[in-house]
Amino acid sequence: MTTAEQQDALFELEKLVESRIRRDRAEEISGLLAEAELSDIIRLIEHSPVKRGAVLFRLLPPERAGAVFDALDPRHQADMVRALGSDSVGAFFEEMGAEDRVMLLDELPGRVAERLLKELGEKDKQNTDAVLGYEKGTVGRVMSPEIPEIYGSMTAHEVRELLRREHEDLETLYTLPVIDRDRQLTGIVKMRRLFLAERDTLVADLLEDTPSVVASADAEETARWFLPLALLAIPVVDSGNRLVGIFTFDEAQHVVESEDSEDSARQGGSEALKQPYLSTPLTNLVKSRIVWLLVLAVSAILTVQVLDIFEEKMQQAVVLSLFIPLLTGTGGNTGNQAATTVTRALALGDVKKSDVLKVMWREVRVGLMLGAVLGALGFALATLVYGLDIGMVIGLTMLSICTMSATVGGAMPIVAKTVGADPAVFSNPFISTFCDATGLIIYFLIATSILGL
Amino acid sequence: MTTAEQQDALFELEKLVESRIRRDRAEEISGLLAEAELSDIIRLIEHSPVKRGAVLFRLLPPERAGAVFDALDPRHQADMVRALGSDSVGAFFEEMGAEDRVMLLDELPGRVAERLLKELGEKDKQNTDAVLGYEKGTVGRVMSPEIPEIYGSMTAHEVRELLRREHEDLETLYTLPVIDRDRQLTGIVKMRRLFLAERDTLVADLLEDTPSVVASADAEETARWFLPLALLAIPVVDSGNRLVGIFTFDEAQHVVESEDSEDSARQGGSEALKQPYLSTPLTNLVKSRIVWLLVLAVSAILTVQVLDIFEEKMQQAVVLSLFIPLLTGTGGNTGNQAATTVTRALALGDVKKSDVLKVMWREVRVGLMLGAVLGALGFALATLVYGLDIGMVIGLTMLSICTMSATVGGAMPIVAKTVGADPAVFSNPFISTFCDATGLIIYFLIATSILGL
Repeated sequence: MTTAEQQDALFELEKLVESRIRRDRAEEISGLLAEAELSDIIRLIEHSPVKRGAVLFRLLPPERAGAVFDALDPRHQADMVRALGSDSVGAFFEEMGAEDRVMLLDELPGRVAERLLKELGEKDKQNTDAVLGYEKGTVGRVMSPEIPEIYGSMTAHEVRELLRREHEDLETLYTLPVIDRDRQLTGIVKMRRLFLAERDTLVADLLEDTPSVVASADAEETARWFLPLALLAIPVVDSGNRLVGIFTFDEAQHVVESEDSEDSARQGGSEALKQPYLSTPLTNLVKSRIVWLLVLAVSAILTVQVLDIFEEKMQQAVVLSLFIPLLTGTGGNTGNQAATTVTRALALGDVKKSDVLKVMWREVRVGLMLGAVLGALGFALATLVYGLDIGMVIGLTMLSICTMSATVGGAMPIVAKTVGADPAVFSNPFISTFCDATGLIIYFLIATSILGL
Repeated sequence: MTTAEQQDALFELEKLVESRIRRDRAEEISGLLAEAELSDIIRLIEHSPVKRGAVLFRLLPPERAGAVFDALDPRHQADMVRALGSDSVGAFFEEMGAEDRVMLLDELPGRVAERLLKELGEKDKQNTDAVLGYEKGTVGRVMSPEIPEIYGSMTAHEVRELLRREHEDLETLYTLPVIDRDRQLTGIVKMRRLFLAERDTLVADLLEDTPSVVASADAEETARWFLPLALLAIPVVDSGNRLVGIFTFDEAQHVVESEDSEDSARQGGSEALKQPYLSTPLTNLVKSRIVWLLVLAVSAILTVQVLDIFEEKMQQAVVLSLFIPLLTGTGGNTGNQAATTVTRALALGDVKKSDVLKVMWREVRVGLMLGAVLGALGFALATLVYGLDIGMVIGLTMLSICTMSATVGGAMPIVAKTVGADPAVFSNPFISTFCDATGLIIYFLIATSILGL
């Protein structure tokens, strides 16, 4: 099936289910859900309002429910637990990988989480505790702690027997960490090499070097560094290089995707949505935006005060007020460009905190060049329509505002990161507001001195 | 080694290489490069200016150069080809996968590309042509066309022998597409199942269903749909369901990463950089921003004209001009929030083009709610300081501007997508400028009628 056909099939399924729900035909829905593609069902539930999602989940044939629950993202899993009660999902909870289980627990109220944990078997509980022991945002929290014990002295055949006996259901089997007697990591063996090797070949002869990461490392940084390497997984070790788990490409991908969603939302001055846009209640949309709007509006009151100071001068030359939106807009745009570029460079690891002066010096020069072009244009146009004096004021202000905004915009994300804030938070909207106020002061100072007000 | 240690090692390497280059110690650099981690060398070259990168590449021990070249991203590969000449890199070119080869060709001038292509062996040339035959931006263009021919009638042992004989160097062996006599795709067999199976087990008995994608499908859409499934690869078929290649998670990840970089840059009103920020020449930074700034500044001249119309009224009540930045700023912020949210939802496939009315209706209501809160606040503050009349003007304007901006901001990305433009291009800075001009008109209309100017 092609993607377009798959999309169509999904819409088709949506419509069919919709009409059955309207006519209360539970059995027919069960029938539809028994035959649909699993990935369509998952998408359908994730895109439905919570209550409908829970109804659909309950109508799933029992043999499919586990797979669907496992594939839902943690927030929707939590919705299901809340809607259906912890009893109905306890069985699925046991079948999850420890790292997925912890992500679900993070979304649940403490009471419910405890109840679910209590019913886990001993080994599952140990694995879950291992992951829960690490701080949120670290690799330890998203790694998979279930790994087979493979030693260099084993043969390809022995590894195969071990995996077949004990680990057939593990998610990560293609990159197998190899340890010594002290559980110290000595390298990895790839399943492809085991598969193509003779049965008596020693693991030690197939051993490859591998990058690894300590469990306390930052998950986002690690994921961004690890994904471009196009590896399936890297071993996770403790501070003594002892193997404690494995960090897979799909967990890394998940970490980066949710951070990017957050960054993107914050660059636009709102919080990331926890659900698909169309199934998010309106009040949640308002909540994700109102705080930022209020903060920004309150700080923009600064611009009213700045202008209040210069009110008398504006009365003498009302023409000055015509250019306010043009000048503040240009300043805001220049600042945003710099901030967006540097925020992205920080996220990708291209720029480090210690580069702040380098970045500012680059942005001073970029801002000067941009300001020279825009200032010349502003000078020419304003002179033509409003005369030479106004032309000079506008040109010089453009030049100054561009330079100031680019420098501030470039430095702000690094300053934010240095004080431990999310660079994306202190970014675009905040910079616009800051540049507005500062730009207006620059504008009126230049105007006062040139026009002699 | 931990990520932090790895970062330190990289900086250390950078400093060491730097000091050797200053003192012109080529041999010592070769020594350093022979011992450093491959991933550090790749990062070092990607973060260096082109010329230095080429020098470093030339100083690499021959046995490491191939691996490094292969891992560089296409733009840096192209830099190396240009700096070192196609002769020195011809050998590496032959060793690349067909999809990587095509991505490199896309970055090279036609002349150089042809010369490189001419020296390819017959089979490599065929594979490259297969990929080149698809349009840019499609799955066909980023898929890997080299796939083993596996039939359901083969045994696990036969597959192993086939792979060992002919395909040991293939990148993608963990997900193996299975075909019938007509090359029609019948499913996949996972290497883990082959590995754990008895040697005489038939592939047909290990066969699993798989999603697939047609080669002409959009690469970004496919990647965003495929990555959350956490599969290693999906088969690529032609319109007749015949197997033509395989699309791997790391290519998908690469596609999404570069689209996200572009979107993020465009949301800030600039073009994505082709190199790490600190190694991008200043003039390129200026180029990536100046066009947008000019477009925005020229359209912001609209605001000067709008205000020019109302100049007389402003002269009668200069107090009105004090609120211009506050009102346009709030409008811009509200519009940006909506645009960012909808752009992201479009990218993730949560919103479709046909949802435009649904989205606008949601945003009208969200905008009204946001406007009610901000308007009440504006009314209270402005009334306190400037009296009831001004308070009413500000409150009503806030309400109207928020509603208008949220609606326009939410609709704009969908309209952009419908006319075939990048939703991120028509987003934040453009919406700010649009909302500025419209907001000012609303402002002065409300002011005129309430204040009776």
